Amino acid sequence: MFQTFETTSRPQDGPPRLASLRAQISQAGLNGFLVPRADPHQGEYVADHDARLAWLTGFTGSAGFAAVLQDIAGVFVDGRYRLQVHDQVADVYTPVDWPDVQLADWLVQHLPEGGRIGYDPWLHTTAQIKELTSSLATSNITLHPVDNLVDGIWTDQPPRPKNPMRVHPENRAGEPHSQKRNRLGVALEKAGKRCAIISLPDSICWLLNIRGTDIPRNPIVQGFAILDTTGEVHLFTDATAEPEVRDHLGEHVHIHPRDALPDHLKDAERRTYQVDPKSTPQAILHVLQDNQSVTIVEGDDPCILPKACKNNTEIEGARAAHIRDGAAMVRFLAWLDATTPAGHLTEIDVVTQLEGFRRETNQLCDISFETICGAGEHGAIVHYRVTQDSNRKVQPDQLLLVDSGGQYLDGTTDITRTVIVGTPTAEHRDRYTRVLQGMIAVSRTQFPRGVAGNHLDALARAPLWAEGMDYDHGTGHGVGAYLSVHEGPQGLSRRATTPFQEGMIVSNEPGYYKAGAYGIRIENLIVVTKTPTGPDARDMLAFETLTYVPLDKRLIDAELLSPAERQWIDAYHAKTLDLIGPQVDGDALTWLQSACAPL
Amino acid sequence: MFQTFETTSRPQDGPPRLASLRAQISQAGLNGFLVPRADPHQGEYVADHDARLAWLTGFTGSAGFAAVLQDIAGVFVDGRYRLQVHDQVADVYTPVDWPDVQLADWLVQHLPEGGRIGYDPWLHTTAQIKELTSSLATSNITLHPVDNLVDGIWTDQPPRPKNPMRVHPENRAGEPHSQKRNRLGVALEKAGKRCAIISLPDSICWLLNIRGTDIPRNPIVQGFAILDTTGEVHLFTDATAEPEVRDHLGEHVHIHPRDALPDHLKDAERRTYQVDPKSTPQAILHVLQDNQSVTIVEGDDPCILPKACKNNTEIEGARAAHIRDGAAMVRFLAWLDATTPAGHLTEIDVVTQLEGFRRETNQLCDISFETICGAGEHGAIVHYRVTQDSNRKVQPDQLLLVDSGGQYLDGTTDITRTVIVGTPTAEHRDRYTRVLQGMIAVSRTQFPRGVAGNHLDALARAPLWAEGMDYDHGTGHGVGAYLSVHEGPQGLSRRATTPFQEGMIVSNEPGYYKAGAYGIRIENLIVVTKTPTGPDARDMLAFETLTYVPLDKRLIDAELLSPAERQWIDAYHAKTLDLIGPQVDGDALTWLQSACAPL
Repeated sequence: MFQTFETTSRPQDGPPRLASLRAQISQAGLNGFLVPRADPHQGEYVADHDARLAWLTGFTGSAGFAAVLQDIAGVFVDGRYRLQVHDQVADVYTPVDWPDVQLADWLVQHLPEGGRIGYDPWLHTTAQIKELTSSLATSNITLHPVDNLVDGIWTDQPPRPKNPMRVHPENRAGEPHSQKRNRLGVALEKAGKRCAIISLPDSICWLLNIRGTDIPRNPIVQGFAILDTTGEVHLFTDATAEPEVRDHLGEHVHIHPRDALPDHLKDAERRTYQVDPKSTPQAILHVLQDNQSVTIVEGDDPCILPKACKNNTEIEGARAAHIRDGAAMVRFLAWLDATTPAGHLTEIDVVTQLEGFRRETNQLCDISFETICGAGEHGAIVHYRVTQDSNRKVQPDQLLLVDSGGQYLDGTTDITRTVIVGTPTAEHRDRYTRVLQGMIAVSRTQFPRGVAGNHLDALARAPLWAEGMDYDHGTGHGVGAYLSVHEGPQGLSRRATTPFQEGMIVSNEPGYYKAGAYGIRIENLIVVTKTPTGPDARDMLAFETLTYVPLDKRLIDAELLSPAERQWIDAYHAKTLDLIGPQVDGDALTWLQSACAPL
Repeated sequence: MFQTFETTSRPQDGPPRLASLRAQISQAGLNGFLVPRADPHQGEYVADHDARLAWLTGFTGSAGFAAVLQDIAGVFVDGRYRLQVHDQVADVYTPVDWPDVQLADWLVQHLPEGGRIGYDPWLHTTAQIKELTSSLATSNITLHPVDNLVDGIWTDQPPRPKNPMRVHPENRAGEPHSQKRNRLGVALEKAGKRCAIISLPDSICWLLNIRGTDIPRNPIVQGFAILDTTGEVHLFTDATAEPEVRDHLGEHVHIHPRDALPDHLKDAERRTYQVDPKSTPQAILHVLQDNQSVTIVEGDDPCILPKACKNNTEIEGARAAHIRDGAAMVRFLAWLDATTPAGHLTEIDVVTQLEGFRRETNQLCDISFETICGAGEHGAIVHYRVTQDSNRKVQPDQLLLVDSGGQYLDGTTDITRTVIVGTPTAEHRDRYTRVLQGMIAVSRTQFPRGVAGNHLDALARAPLWAEGMDYDHGTGHGVGAYLSVHEGPQGLSRRATTPFQEGMIVSNEPGYYKAGAYGIRIENLIVVTKTPTGPDARDMLAFETLTYVPLDKRLIDAELLSPAERQWIDAYHAKTLDLIGPQVDGDALTWLQSACAPL
């Protein structure tokens, strides 16, 4: 079982750890220290070694940071975690509503004149430090890079990950890494003979066609890389490379110990280094700035965009992974329909069973994130993760929201289905249908090249907006190819400004949440494709759906649908039966046939 | 008659003027000179005094610039003007496709090493010069501010406008200028004791509740203003102020001659000046930079956002102006329907008659822009302005696109209707209906606070996108209150990132254009309003329609409509009859009743 359900932190550990940290802060001649929920690679998940925020404060959310001063210790969390943080931290910590309250303003309010704040420069990007420095410019509070003070008191800190790298073979990657390195190198040469520093592990894994197990849920290798204009790569990692991996990487990829990076940069002569302010740690900038012979320029991580545009091999892989995963989902949903009405199952039972169906494919490498399984009011908690403490029975006449995915060698899946256990209310059906209409509007749209997710997000919301409703999350995020389930730069939200390009995979997941009552979300993955030429021969793109798993027809109010929407649903179900039918049998097939019958 | 139809420039004037300018360039020790279609206030229309680009080259479009070198003279124009520029300029000029070709790249290509380019610093904003300087940074081409070299050879250059200011009374403006000045002053005080330099005439007119006649179509006073934190204003203008105007402005608004601005800034002591890089002329920045005792900060023109959010008085005025203008439009459309089928009318006849109907209101101050009246293939030219040379008969079975508006003391209107003369084809009806569906989608939408025009633009396009079609202009622009018909910062396009706020007026004008065949555009003005609270008490906004003039039902294919769209059209026509019916009689009323009957 990949997913676990224990509560991993205890509020009562917070106070003594805070006291030790404050002693360290004094000793270092500082007035405070910043503890972000981040590792040097700014990933969504961190290794146990880097779980400093959770160890110190008890707060286990996927985003946030603490600012520890002598008289107050703020734990800054966003809207998703406002309730959770109160349950998880002892009262020596003060939850702070971020981003409503900005760190700089809070520091100015709570620090004496001339306050000195320490931070670990490996855990903050250059953009973050630049912004914070600029926000503090009118005060006389100053920032000071120091060795991590939490590591100094965390006596049983787990070691940094050090796992074997694996080859991601060309029949999955679709392009040899030599070719990727060379074409990116040529672009860096053209941009002014730049070496790019890459600190995002999924960029490195994509570039070198490798995968790893350094972090749960994300099959990545942790490390840094420097890509030269020649296509040569220097890889700095603690991950181990068996001869097979060394062969695969070849003579133009040089493996160094992870800690050798600073010295490597110190010794570099007369080079131009490109850093991505959104991902490069401030520590690397400091090393480069200390070397008088190098020039530093800012630029996007060169892998970001090519990695996002999946090639045909990767798209074929994604299709296959989605059919396999869809069959597991169909077995799961058939089982759910047969079992839940009795009212005995708990949320943990459901999660366990679902992982079981995925494991039965014999091809599951990991789940792609902790399954979100929320019955009734738990469904309204957008990032709900069930624990032994929160676990509850799935009751008749409740909506059940299940958001889950699998990591397969050929692709990463992410799917949400909301089902009714028993009989829905008219309100359930109205809201579900509007959410579905939004999902369909995105699925069906065509758009000219140049359009980005921020232009299309409204299509998914319009049916809810029409009645004064909305949902407080983006409509979709980019998805990797057997990599991170959350991947930039593409997305479907007001913040997604990167134009769509062929091969980008994105989730399409509108929702509706009624606090204390229920949550609805419907999610398919879709991939950007070129459309046939229309009457004006415009260069138009569209989305091809990857996810084929039945929608709960009991929750669809057909009266609300346009003929085109009705047609879309019937065609979707017909194709689902075509694709998934041959993969299942017995009760699951019977269930599928009924679920896929026309409206 | 406000509108004229003569061709105002002659290609044959271009060569001798170009030769004279080149002599001036040599004499000034330069290798080239920039001639933008701009005055120091960056307005859409320029006074005859500032029509340097048209005088020099013959090109009369509303945007563009010339870069005159010794061996080549490029006339840079955007997609709207690619055909027109070829007709208007002699072959000593080289049309350049802008922004595909960027000025800096073109200069690097055509200038020798160390080339020196002159420009008039009053005609370029600080942002433009900053960007151009930065783009030229890797070359050794340099920019040099000089007196305008075109003015040096333009012996019969018309003088700068010098017209009387008029009071825009409080019962139209809705707020005394003292209150506007004071609240903006308080904001500047809070932002760090800044004086704001304002160079947009419509900002100044809004701030001081004045109007003028310095520029055709826009009832503005040309000048610069400095707004102090105290609410005190220094106004620099050549416009004349009768005692009534001086009384209105009062003792806290100080009028100076326009040319006194540089000396005023030179003498300023220990002040912080806020400049808006998007509108402040580079010349003003130079004066400020030469004064060691002042601090310069960048910030938006402080009037931009408050001006865009119309108060209740202004919205009431807009409603009244739209009913008056709508009645004129109805008389016009009734006349058009009765007269065009005979096939005798020309485009100029149509424009003349329309202006006549508006004049008959006895309240028309000006048209709000040159009427666009395109029959058949002329309709496909998005910014078509009929001249004696281009004028043609409106033929049976043609689509006729008429985009026009009026300036009234209580509001500015802008409306486009496309009608069929005779019998439409199935294609006409399909395209018209899709354009209308887009217009309706925007009209009907509700959206949460925070949403901007770039998020909603796709709603207007989706019905065309669905069939691989689109239109190459924004869906809408902000509109002033008896001010400019094009006003920022709000808009409905991919570039419009300012969130909508109550009181913003915006046009809603999707279109479809088939080159060489026909053009369709349907435009209403709409105003942002707060909606009643929905089930989740979300803070939602919506659009109230201001324009009520019938849509051509002969062009609507009801088969394509959803029930909600059909309902919207019938309700729109019912309200049109309600509002406009009492304003017309005779044949116009009969026509209106028929035009407003349900589908």
